[in-house]
Parts: sequence; C-alpha cells; structure tokens
Amino acid sequence: MTLKNDIFIKTLLKQPVDRTPIWMMRQAGRYLPEYRKIREQAGSFMDLCTQPELACEVTLQPLERFDFDAAILFSDILTIPDAMGLGLYFSEGEGPKFRNPVRTESDIKKLSVPDPEIELSYVMDAVRLIRKNLQERVPLIGFSGSPWTLATYMVEGGSSKNFRHVKGLMYEQPALMHQMLDKLAQSVSAYLNAQIAAGAQTVMLFDTWGGMLSTEDYLEFSLRYAQQIRESLNTNRDGQTIPTILFTKGGGQWLEAMADIGYDALGLDWQTDINLARARVGDKVALQGNLDPIALYAEPDVIRQKVKTILEKFGEGSGHVFNLGHGILPDVNPEHVKVMVDAVHEFSLAHHNV
Amino acid sequence: MTLKNDIFIKTLLKQPVDRTPIWMMRQAGRYLPEYRKIREQAGSFMDLCTQPELACEVTLQPLERFDFDAAILFSDILTIPDAMGLGLYFSEGEGPKFRNPVRTESDIKKLSVPDPEIELSYVMDAVRLIRKNLQERVPLIGFSGSPWTLATYMVEGGSSKNFRHVKGLMYEQPALMHQMLDKLAQSVSAYLNAQIAAGAQTVMLFDTWGGMLSTEDYLEFSLRYAQQIRESLNTNRDGQTIPTILFTKGGGQWLEAMADIGYDALGLDWQTDINLARARVGDKVALQGNLDPIALYAEPDVIRQKVKTILEKFGEGSGHVFNLGHGILPDVNPEHVKVMVDAVHEFSLAHHNV
Repeated sequence: MTLKNDIFIKTLLKQPVDRTPIWMMRQAGRYLPEYRKIREQAGSFMDLCTQPELACEVTLQPLERFDFDAAILFSDILTIPDAMGLGLYFSEGEGPKFRNPVRTESDIKKLSVPDPEIELSYVMDAVRLIRKNLQERVPLIGFSGSPWTLATYMVEGGSSKNFRHVKGLMYEQPALMHQMLDKLAQSVSAYLNAQIAAGAQTVMLFDTWGGMLSTEDYLEFSLRYAQQIRESLNTNRDGQTIPTILFTKGGGQWLEAMADIGYDALGLDWQTDINLARARVGDKVALQGNLDPIALYAEPDVIRQKVKTILEKFGEGSGHVFNLGHGILPDVNPEHVKVMVDAVHEFSLAHHNV
Repeated sequence: MTLKNDIFIKTLLKQPVDRTPIWMMRQAGRYLPEYRKIREQAGSFMDLCTQPELACEVTLQPLERFDFDAAILFSDILTIPDAMGLGLYFSEGEGPKFRNPVRTESDIKKLSVPDPEIELSYVMDAVRLIRKNLQERVPLIGFSGSPWTLATYMVEGGSSKNFRHVKGLMYEQPALMHQMLDKLAQSVSAYLNAQIAAGAQTVMLFDTWGGMLSTEDYLEFSLRYAQQIRESLNTNRDGQTIPTILFTKGGGQWLEAMADIGYDALGLDWQTDINLARARVGDKVALQGNLDPIALYAEPDVIRQKVKTILEKFGEGSGHVFNLGHGILPDVNPEHVKVMVDAVHEFSLAHHNV
C-alpha cells in the first residue's frame, strides 16, 4: 500500500509537487477541545504519552479537522531521559521536571542507553498503532529531542532560563559533558531507528535549546551529535527513503553548518528570513517553517497575508514545508489554524509548476 | 579637562589604542555586596534610580573594584514609559511591571513625549553628578531602551514570554503601532540628547526584545526607529564626537542591516561569532561583546581561556570593546569578574600594534 498523500515526503526530498505541504508543531495539543477532553480523562500528560491507544487518538485528532499533510507522533521530547531512570513529571505551570537530575560524574557514568523496544516500547507501540489507523492518508513523523537539549533538562532538572548548571558542566568538565552527550546520541539514534522500524516515515530532531549556545559551543556540543545521529540513522526502509529534519530554535546564524551534515531538511524559527535562508543553504536541504506562532492570534486577514508573504519569500519550486516557527500556543482559536491551512493550499499553487 | 582613559571612546571610533577596553553590562548591580547594601538602604529599585546621589554612588562602585574602561549610568531601561505616566514598579521575582499598561487606541493617543529635564530630571541630575565625581577617569555611557523594547513592556504590562499583546497590536493595527513607536522614538531621542547635554560621553540603545521579531518585522518595527533616533542624536559636543552603540539581543542575523544606519558600534550577544561578525560588518562599525554571562560562573582558568578565544576571534587592531553578551547575573562571584578584566588586559596587548 502506498501513501495517498506523499507531498510532505516528496517536498523534503525536493521532488516536484503541486502545492506546499503543511503540518504544525504541537498540532496535537491543548488548543483542540477534543485533545483537552482526552487529556482530562487520561490523568497526567505522561499517562497520555504512555498509553498507545490514547497517544494514537490524539495524534489523529488534528487530521480530522485540518488538511494537514503529515501526522506527528504524540509524545514528549524527554522520553529518553525518563527511560534512563530520571523520573520525568510535569508540574503545573512549570513544565517538565526530573526527580533525579544528573549532576555528578557518577550520575553520568551510571546513565545507560535504553533499549527502545523495552524501556520505550510504549512509543513504538504508539507508532505501530498510529500507522495502522492512519491507513496511509499522510506520513507519520517520528521525533526526539537532541542530545544537547535533553542534557539541559537532565542537568538542570527541568526547564531553565540561564542553563547555568549544564553550561557549568560543559565549561568545566567538557570531557564528561561529551561522555554524556555521546550516550545521549547513541540513545537518540537507537530510539529514532526503532521509530523508523516501527513505521515512522520521517524523523525530526528537535534542538530546542541549541540556540542558547555560543557558535563554537553549538558546533562542538550540539551540532556534532546531530551529525553523529544522522550518520547512525537507517534512512532506507524497503527501498523507501526516510527523510530527516533538523530544527535548532535560535539557530538561524548556523544554517550553513546545519545544512552540511546530511539532514534532508532544516526547520526554521520565525526570526529567520526564509528567502535569505534558501539563498544561504542552496539546494542542499529543504526548509520547514516559519510563521510566528503568535500570528495565529491575529484576525484571519492578517494570517492569510502572513502566509502569503512566507510562501512568496520561499519562492518557486519544491523544497518548502509550511509550518510554524515553533509550537502552536495552547489558547489559539482552532478556526485560525484552518485559515492558515486554507491559505497555504490557496496561495502555494502559484509557486509550483507541476 | 580631558579624559584620563579614553581607549573606550577611541575604540568605538576605531582609532588606534594599545589594548582592548572592557566594561560590563549591569556592572553596577546585585553581584556586588556594596551594591546590595545601598540597595537595601534605598528601599525599592526605583528609589535607587531616582536619587541622584545613590545612583551616582552605585555607578562608581564597580570602578573601585575593577579596571573598567567605562562607567554606565545606573538607571533602568523603562524610565521613559514611567515618565509617560504608566507607573513602573518592580514586583519581587517577576521583574518590571506597569500599573497602567497601554492597550487601546485611546491609551496610545494619550501618550506624550516627556521633557527629559522635567519628568526625567533625576536621570540628568545623576548624569551630571556622576560626571563630576568621575573626574575624567573613564567616560560615562548613557542609555535608553529601544522603542520596540519599551513598547513590549508598555503593552504587555511587564515582562513577557510570547509578546502576544504587543505583537497582536503590531499585526492587527500596524498604523497605531507605528504611532506609538514614533512617539517613543521622539522620546528616546530627546532623552538621549539630554543625557549627552548633561555629560554622557557615549550613548547605547538597548533593544532587548528585537530578537523576538521576524526579520521583516524587526526591520519595520524596531530597526527603523533605531535609525530615526540615530538621525536625531546630537553626537557632537564641543567638537567631541559622542559615539553611539546599538545592541539587539538575538539580532545576530541582522548585523549587516544594523551596521548600515549610522551607529558607531554594535553590541553582540554571546551566540554570535565575533570573527564572522567582523567579516560581515567590515569597517562600518566597531563591535562590543561577547562572553556568555554564564561563563563567569566557571573556574578562573576557564574564564581566561574564553576571554583569550574571543580576543583571538576578533583579531588584530582596534574596534573591539570587550563585554559580556548580556548583563552579568546577580550571584556571580566578583572575583571572577576580576579574572575576566585581568585576562582582557593581559591577552589583548598582543592584538594591538600601537
């Protein structure tokens, strides 16, 4: 059986398509009343992630409402450290936290690479169930947090403003930091390969906090491990290419370096001009993005104009996946998402000559 | 009487000097025990800003400890909106807030440009007193928040994570937003010119939140007003040039545009590579920055190495003012600041051939 809608995959591979595909970071999420209902029934956020039937249900919810060209696995970027025994939980209003943060050399030495089909089997079960229920409507995106981003939460014990502890480790014990990042890169590689084996048709690496690093630290402590992961990925399954996407929030200055390590596409935050970005990366990669998530609060006319501008900035031909520059916010009106999706459909036809 | 140490001014103007000058954003601040003592006596943070004797005292404190090459007026970036009647106050742990945020068209129409020598006379008195007490040891930097940055606080009512309200205004009522920004630009111009008239020897515009905008919005809603201000500044006083500095945190992608509007120097955040930045802006501007403030938590050897690397990255010749990439954090050990200052003194000699 083949995909009924493969324009997302084709675009990532820069093959001709007749319009610009669209999906949305956090498209399965709190802005949808049907999501909030399941979330309430499930108990905690992690209860929702760890029950494949529920994860599947919320993954598919946005596709019932909107003509998105891809589904993304409902999960969290911090499943790997949780599987390493750090005890992930979500405290009200404060985001993710770990009961057992990593601080000492002995904490790092003790970390072991989880077997995705054992400690993270709930994710693989969700991938398999989603693929089955998707019935080839659109492709499924698997994902993971990047090693650097995982390390920030693991060392800080949760979200952070200044990244004092993780940067302290990086500055003062770089060899130890590299040991930790190497274990994380191995874990992410195994995790994404297991998602691919279970049925993910694209994988995306979220480097949410790479943008907090200096250029040289980004290259050494974040991008290097994104490359290690890329080199370990099995991106061929039964003759089909599994495209790969790298997204560093705040990484607009580093696109050239990011385009050089083998990913098929780069995610762009909203600060980066997609026209200039395309000129900088040339034909090396496709680009995904990059509407300011806050624009979805605006009136429909404004949203339509913003969508049109981004499509025009990217310009002619394949290689652009429309998306937000970061995740949708919890209290956006779902009708506004529909306006964005319709605008991408309407305005992007003119930029494709197939 | 002439300045005893003018290497900061000369460097901003790219004139030859024998070493790299250094000062530090928030150098008069909570990391200093002598500051905390005065702060406690003063009452609130604003009480400290509004009493010229106290503002003068804390401005001079860091110069007693460290060989900084410039003093910076102790004040807040939000004095202008406070003078406009918005009622600035500081709530414990939540940063600055306004009692009367600006939300409606009528709120914006009512805003009037403060007369700096009336509503902001406490700032001008502080500038005069500091100049007197500095006795020409080093130059005094005056400053203001940028119109866009002021507008974010004025519309949001305080600090913000997503800038939903101010961006909503910008997206949906751009003409009204421009009215507000124009009034702010007029106010900032008058304020900085008054600081110059009172004795400031350099002025710096802090665009703390410009980096939250898309490229096109940054150019239209932030940089445009930085340019309007620059064109209104009286940068000649008694035959002396008053150099100007523009700092947009998160603005590393826009350095070329920033270098084109007449400022003598650009501030760099720590994410931007100063070597690449220099190549991009060429001879148009000097550069100021850009050690990660978190590096000051590290051990002395690490700090020294980081300083050395930044100096080497900038390379030969004048045009580099050493600084952090953002303000120093409140709990840094002052001894570590000394390590940084000494390292700049020691390592920068080799990069100057005077």
